Amino acid sequence: MIIDCHGHYTTAPKALEEFRKRQVNGLKDPSLSPAKDSLRISDDQLRESLEGAQLKLQRNRGTDLTIFSPRAGGMGHHIGNAATSALWSGICNELIHRICTLYPENFVGVCQLPQSPGVKPDNCLAELERCVKEFGFVGCNLNPDPSGGYWTDPPLTDKWWYPLYEKLVELDVPAMVHVSASCNPNFHFTGAHYINADTTAFMQFLTSDLFKDFPTLKFIIPHGGGAVPYHWGRYRGIAQDMGRPPLKELLLNNVFFDTCVYHRPGIELLLKVIPADNILFASEMVGAVRGIDPETGHHYDDTKRYIDAIDWLSAGDKEKIFHGNVRKVYSRFTAHSTTC
Amino acid sequence: MIIDCHGHYTTAPKALEEFRKRQVNGLKDPSLSPAKDSLRISDDQLRESLEGAQLKLQRNRGTDLTIFSPRAGGMGHHIGNAATSALWSGICNELIHRICTLYPENFVGVCQLPQSPGVKPDNCLAELERCVKEFGFVGCNLNPDPSGGYWTDPPLTDKWWYPLYEKLVELDVPAMVHVSASCNPNFHFTGAHYINADTTAFMQFLTSDLFKDFPTLKFIIPHGGGAVPYHWGRYRGIAQDMGRPPLKELLLNNVFFDTCVYHRPGIELLLKVIPADNILFASEMVGAVRGIDPETGHHYDDTKRYIDAIDWLSAGDKEKIFHGNVRKVYSRFTAHSTTC
Repeated sequence: MIIDCHGHYTTAPKALEEFRKRQVNGLKDPSLSPAKDSLRISDDQLRESLEGAQLKLQRNRGTDLTIFSPRAGGMGHHIGNAATSALWSGICNELIHRICTLYPENFVGVCQLPQSPGVKPDNCLAELERCVKEFGFVGCNLNPDPSGGYWTDPPLTDKWWYPLYEKLVELDVPAMVHVSASCNPNFHFTGAHYINADTTAFMQFLTSDLFKDFPTLKFIIPHGGGAVPYHWGRYRGIAQDMGRPPLKELLLNNVFFDTCVYHRPGIELLLKVIPADNILFASEMVGAVRGIDPETGHHYDDTKRYIDAIDWLSAGDKEKIFHGNVRKVYSRFTAHSTTC
Repeated sequence: MIIDCHGHYTTAPKALEEFRKRQVNGLKDPSLSPAKDSLRISDDQLRESLEGAQLKLQRNRGTDLTIFSPRAGGMGHHIGNAATSALWSGICNELIHRICTLYPENFVGVCQLPQSPGVKPDNCLAELERCVKEFGFVGCNLNPDPSGGYWTDPPLTDKWWYPLYEKLVELDVPAMVHVSASCNPNFHFTGAHYINADTTAFMQFLTSDLFKDFPTLKFIIPHGGGAVPYHWGRYRGIAQDMGRPPLKELLLNNVFFDTCVYHRPGIELLLKVIPADNILFASEMVGAVRGIDPETGHHYDDTKRYIDAIDWLSAGDKEKIFHGNVRKVYSRFTAHSTTC
């Protein structure tokens, strides 16, 4: 079985985007705010949005199941306030739940949190609990920068986030560290903000004792860990210079990397320097890069091909990467798959 | 000849730091502001600060010359205002000039610019010109985020920066894109802010037509290009999806990467995916990582060893990386070395 741990619902019917536009317009003129039940998307529309996209690509590429969450770039936590974010997150998560119900063999849910800059994450606990307990979701996406590129909230290692971590531990679900759109003109969202956030989060973890406080807390750092594996020597060296424990001991019980790296040399580096126990297969399709690489004739984001082609990777390590580690990190996924 | 294109004066006598402290204290109470000539550092103190550090490491590692600039983390453009920055930059650059005069065989200068957040870079032109024309410096460090981690100035591709680029082109000197300290608690300076800035700058260049406006402008992106080579497929794919030209055509006449990547797998990746014409040898010693890697028994930042060990790299490409490209990118360096 091949599980892709990182997929977003990037192909939602236009009605969703139109609802969001009305919601944003309503921030200026509350009379324009749409009622939640004004959004109508039928099951057939959901099916149609997936059949020619994620489901087709699953079939073509030979992957089985995607851990699926709302569109990351669409979370837009910087827009409006906590109430804006609560309504929008609820809607997006409910769509994911409907998709997972329509296609239980193909999708397992992960939720967006109703974060808002400057608002304590305590306001996310109820939605997280609803998604896990009522919808059977197996994790959440945690935005380390709800400001959308100005980084005005505290680091992920600050006690500010602890109530959320307590809930994650209680529910036994991991968080994928994933920013959303950037409203800072310095940062292109998929080309800079995403990758920078991955690198930033790792370095925050490296300099803190967060995992002493939460030994079972688990984070997935997406996009192959940002810059981290490429600079693994730098991070080992910085930790050493700071008198921190070796990275393996300090972090690798709690921090995992996905394989969203869109060329073979990058994937090879990742597999060389990061233990197989800490790598989870992912493609983020349909996502940041949708084209076909003229150098290979295949989609850039068909990451399974790169892994399949690496002949020095043992069968055991491949199994871990393709599904074993997902069952370990997303521990509720095991429960899900045994009850389905 | 082996030229290290990225070294900072990180080992300055304490008097420099003490002067800076007095300068910062003077921001609150101008009566405490030090006069420029109150800073006294003798030639012997300069020699002493280098003999046991950069010069010793040059000898031990078999490198010949370092392109040398003030300490990047110390530039602190976010501190005070343009006048603060002008005084401080002048002092730091003059120290580099003295060092290059004391050791003309070992160091060639690159200047810090008197940037200040929200202040147009026009105020940097005179200092740049002084350093190049009077001191014989061959380039500058350009901070893409003078705010120190809040990224409040325009992207490097904005016309805001054009007067500086006009001067760089006129003087025929390149800029290394290099941030300074981070005052944003989210970003560790050498572990996140530096690497993020490298990635960010590359993506800014990718999305703009800056090099149509300045076909001869040259940037060095340090720290192995941040996350870029590791995600080269992602960047090729994003450019393609956006309808931009191939990266080679779009950027690689103007953008170069250094080799400050502190483990062999990272260096191998860099050399595999980036053309040798675009790679400049560098170590950033004495810098971000000062320890010895227990896996190799050598300093993490002894990057020459990693390159030397790569047997598939041709002699011609090694020559380009170790010195040929430096002469091409820092075109005034050629002039310097023929007149010395």
